[in-house]
Amino acid sequence: MPSYNAPIRDMQFVIHEMLNATETLTKYAKFEDAERDLFDAIMEEGAKFTSEVLTPLNAVGDHEGCVRHEDGSVTTPTGFKEAFKTMVENGWLSLAQDPEYGGQGLPGLLHIASGEMQSAANMAFAMYPGLTNGAIKAIEIGGSDEQKRSYLPKMIQGEWTGTMNLTEPHCGTDLGMLKTKAVPQADGSYKISGQKIFISAGEHDMSDNIVHLVLARIEGAPEGVKGISLFIVPKFTLDPDGNPADRNTVTCGSIEEKMGIHGNSTCVMNYDDAEGYLIGEENKGLKVMFVMMNRARLDVGMQGLAQSEVAYQNAAAYAKDRTQGRALTGPVNDNGPADPIIVHPDVRRMLMETKAFNEGARALIYWATMLEDMEGVHEDEKFREKADDYLGLLTPVIKGYLTDMAMRTTIDCQQIFGGHGFIEEWGMSQFVRDTRIALIYEGANGVQALDLVGRKLARKGGRALMSLNAEIDGFIAENESNENISEFTTGLKSAKAKLQDATMWLMQNGMTNPNNAGAGSVDYMHMMGLTTLAYMWGKMAVTAQAAIDNGSNEDFYPNKLITGRFFMARMLPQIDAHLAKLKTGAEPVMALDAAAF
Amino acid sequence: MPSYNAPIRDMQFVIHEMLNATETLTKYAKFEDAERDLFDAIMEEGAKFTSEVLTPLNAVGDHEGCVRHEDGSVTTPTGFKEAFKTMVENGWLSLAQDPEYGGQGLPGLLHIASGEMQSAANMAFAMYPGLTNGAIKAIEIGGSDEQKRSYLPKMIQGEWTGTMNLTEPHCGTDLGMLKTKAVPQADGSYKISGQKIFISAGEHDMSDNIVHLVLARIEGAPEGVKGISLFIVPKFTLDPDGNPADRNTVTCGSIEEKMGIHGNSTCVMNYDDAEGYLIGEENKGLKVMFVMMNRARLDVGMQGLAQSEVAYQNAAAYAKDRTQGRALTGPVNDNGPADPIIVHPDVRRMLMETKAFNEGARALIYWATMLEDMEGVHEDEKFREKADDYLGLLTPVIKGYLTDMAMRTTIDCQQIFGGHGFIEEWGMSQFVRDTRIALIYEGANGVQALDLVGRKLARKGGRALMSLNAEIDGFIAENESNENISEFTTGLKSAKAKLQDATMWLMQNGMTNPNNAGAGSVDYMHMMGLTTLAYMWGKMAVTAQAAIDNGSNEDFYPNKLITGRFFMARMLPQIDAHLAKLKTGAEPVMALDAAAF
Repeated sequence: MPSYNAPIRDMQFVIHEMLNATETLTKYAKFEDAERDLFDAIMEEGAKFTSEVLTPLNAVGDHEGCVRHEDGSVTTPTGFKEAFKTMVENGWLSLAQDPEYGGQGLPGLLHIASGEMQSAANMAFAMYPGLTNGAIKAIEIGGSDEQKRSYLPKMIQGEWTGTMNLTEPHCGTDLGMLKTKAVPQADGSYKISGQKIFISAGEHDMSDNIVHLVLARIEGAPEGVKGISLFIVPKFTLDPDGNPADRNTVTCGSIEEKMGIHGNSTCVMNYDDAEGYLIGEENKGLKVMFVMMNRARLDVGMQGLAQSEVAYQNAAAYAKDRTQGRALTGPVNDNGPADPIIVHPDVRRMLMETKAFNEGARALIYWATMLEDMEGVHEDEKFREKADDYLGLLTPVIKGYLTDMAMRTTIDCQQIFGGHGFIEEWGMSQFVRDTRIALIYEGANGVQALDLVGRKLARKGGRALMSLNAEIDGFIAENESNENISEFTTGLKSAKAKLQDATMWLMQNGMTNPNNAGAGSVDYMHMMGLTTLAYMWGKMAVTAQAAIDNGSNEDFYPNKLITGRFFMARMLPQIDAHLAKLKTGAEPVMALDAAAF
Repeated sequence: MPSYNAPIRDMQFVIHEMLNATETLTKYAKFEDAERDLFDAIMEEGAKFTSEVLTPLNAVGDHEGCVRHEDGSVTTPTGFKEAFKTMVENGWLSLAQDPEYGGQGLPGLLHIASGEMQSAANMAFAMYPGLTNGAIKAIEIGGSDEQKRSYLPKMIQGEWTGTMNLTEPHCGTDLGMLKTKAVPQADGSYKISGQKIFISAGEHDMSDNIVHLVLARIEGAPEGVKGISLFIVPKFTLDPDGNPADRNTVTCGSIEEKMGIHGNSTCVMNYDDAEGYLIGEENKGLKVMFVMMNRARLDVGMQGLAQSEVAYQNAAAYAKDRTQGRALTGPVNDNGPADPIIVHPDVRRMLMETKAFNEGARALIYWATMLEDMEGVHEDEKFREKADDYLGLLTPVIKGYLTDMAMRTTIDCQQIFGGHGFIEEWGMSQFVRDTRIALIYEGANGVQALDLVGRKLARKGGRALMSLNAEIDGFIAENESNENISEFTTGLKSAKAKLQDATMWLMQNGMTNPNNAGAGSVDYMHMMGLTTLAYMWGKMAVTAQAAIDNGSNEDFYPNKLITGRFFMARMLPQIDAHLAKLKTGAEPVMALDAAAF
């Protein structure tokens, strides 16, 4: 059975050394308690909780799945309910939530680090609190004070969980087509009717109530995206004391049989005149939903990293343990009949690609999350603006590029197991199957790429990318003379120039024919992913080299540089292929008549 | 539920137009019956059989899997037994088998075309006859006349099936470590004891007998690969009339729970003093096994193509049917609320990549199979030598590169379905899960790459590649002046030059440090895959353009050119990234200490 040990040293390196996070954040009143020792202690606890409680349940969840009973109730896999209780009791849900509603008010950075651990240990399980978190965000953003008081405390304490209801059988990406209707009632509530599909954690046995956030169209509302409103539809409506009372007419019609994340109940939800309450203004539901979705997209990128990390750990352990064949340069294990397979260059290539990706991806996600934390407290409007710009730009890259890559790395890690990788018992198949959904939900990766080139690049006259480019230029100028890390500055400089080349090409050619931008959008998203990862590796290299220069003799630092050099030498060259493909434009992609497919 | 329609027109284009196969083959006595009409009639029948009989059983097999009973017997999924009976009755198993033992003696090319259909319709099912075919080959290559007479007719008629038993729990790639032992008996037979794992079709209910081909070590044999012999171990030993009589002591201990190909029974086989008969000479078992394996590797490449083709067909149909969003260039479906998603450039990109890959892959596999057919009949020794050289070079590329690519294309086709792609009901997940094994079995893809750079390139002073390069040069010289297909000759010329550059680099640097070759082996394999696919596209382009020049107004030909141009513009540029990575050599890959993983 696979194991998972939270990579705390790597996490600390990014948080404490590269980002200097606690020192920076504790300067602000909101985060004055977020000291380094507290961070470390919570991460240690998180590591224990995830390896001891969540990891053993991962295969159980995959094997048992969720069971829907005839009355529409759903039972989660053995142990999930108890683990969720433990999770609640240990305060993992309320970590970064608003103290006004019972949260601990710690930085999102700590939340993402513990979230990474939870998703690595058991992605299907971690989705239950993950979805709740999304619902909390939506109510915080758009809810009335009364709604906040009614729902947030119980959700933050984990007594109630939440869901997001967007997709319908005929519409997913194109929400403008949605049909679920809301009929206004005399008391100010609405009757919601319709069918929603792919609803994660839609029905289960882990909480006393489930708070469904539902997109629906109020009778008579405009067509398309301009007529969509957001509603709270609780599984049990509340009595005057705010406790769950009557069963609402929202039911789970069936559970989907999926490729992965079997431990999460993915439901078809039927709304049959269910009582619902409008969040915010009529017809403005998408706005709230999108703020929440952008946050959720960072979490999906994190899920990709998490699965890649746990797959890596198990593949590395297997490669050091399994003996087969001899090193090309002569036996290293003279006493045995064969060498451990980690001697084989191609096995190492797959491990190194995964390792270099994981460490770069972690730096990128944590950097973005730190920007989010800072956006909430920084006194300088310019800084807050920049943070918002960066998050706009980085969100589709973190969601799309990182999960595309995680698909490849989990498959490579499975490959290292040979035939055993294909056998469920070894657990590597589950990592691949669970990762697969991350490329699809919260906006398919192709949609992320289109969001990047079609919306985020152009926003505010391209200010976000100009600002990021200037930051990278500054970083290069500052570190170019440091010969110990010259591969990093050189590689980054070249990648940035190619990304600029691609950006120029898109600007020049996307206007005349938007399909030029569409056809190259995924290539562009990968180019930005490669460039931002190169930037992260540059920052990590500077940090590691400084530690060495300061006399550290921890192996960790030279190993960090070796891993980063691998990224620059063996992964970054992919950017050229993307640039060449992008510049061929729409014509080769669109030339064939649709009927000829 | 997914559908499958054999792409007969594309198959005919390769067989009749590009390869001019029937005209060439019928010149030889062995294939004098293999006329174009016969080919077409058999392909039409194959299309009907696979879409009507095998396709509907694909999801059944995935869902039910195989069941092992307490007595060790195994039941295949509902309908498999009957479908196998139909398959036997229709003569699909004996198509290209030796007439001396009841085969129809038709070309392997027809066998691979029908095999592609069967594997696309139902890969798990097609493995039962596929493994039998491998066992037949091994007996043909190494068996005595008596063994051939005893086993081949029944296997060719489908009364008995076959298996290949190589892997043991502690050894797969490194067969030198195998422990299964063979003890010589007074009557010339052997008692075989040991455990074999991952035995496809190891036990089932579809045939009267199962002929296991088993690698084992005769007591006292040399250690390592030099002491391995090959044995026939029938499930039932034969009575004097050659009919199954006594149950041999070989049993299925368990069935593996796998990621995919659930319809195939992947068994742990226990040999407990089972009666076995030596094939060929003592300690020379691997030689026979490797001839057979090379043939099997072409079939695995074909499985990759087959899954990619069926995934493509369903994704294309979905993309034309599913409406969501609007074309970037303005609505095309004014009467509906949204456009079919095939209008979106990124959806098309994924479809085009899959289509261009499939058509190139098919040309490559069929070309190689035609070479194999010709090798068996051609009067000129030089030609036979060349065919053998090419097959040596192309086999690891067809196995490794094509299945690596099929993994990506099946995932992309699944992606086109959005959330529905993740739901088992739609069938796209099965294509991904079934494809996954093709990267592993018959030698993991990393092993293929090492075989290519470590063995096949250097064989006979590099004669194979020199010969292929000369052939490509000739092709370019002949067609360079044809302006209508200039993208093809230009692209091929450039790809060939880069492949040569990589080859030179490997020659110069692989000697001093073999890890330089190992670290770049997969990149090299992909470079050769891209170059040979570019060559195939060049040949197809010449053929299609000639048809147009000859006045054909079938849309098929311009569409073929459009698809090929897409390959040259949008897929071939990947070769640069591989070259850049390869040239960084072993250092970045090997620098990290094994303990630091």
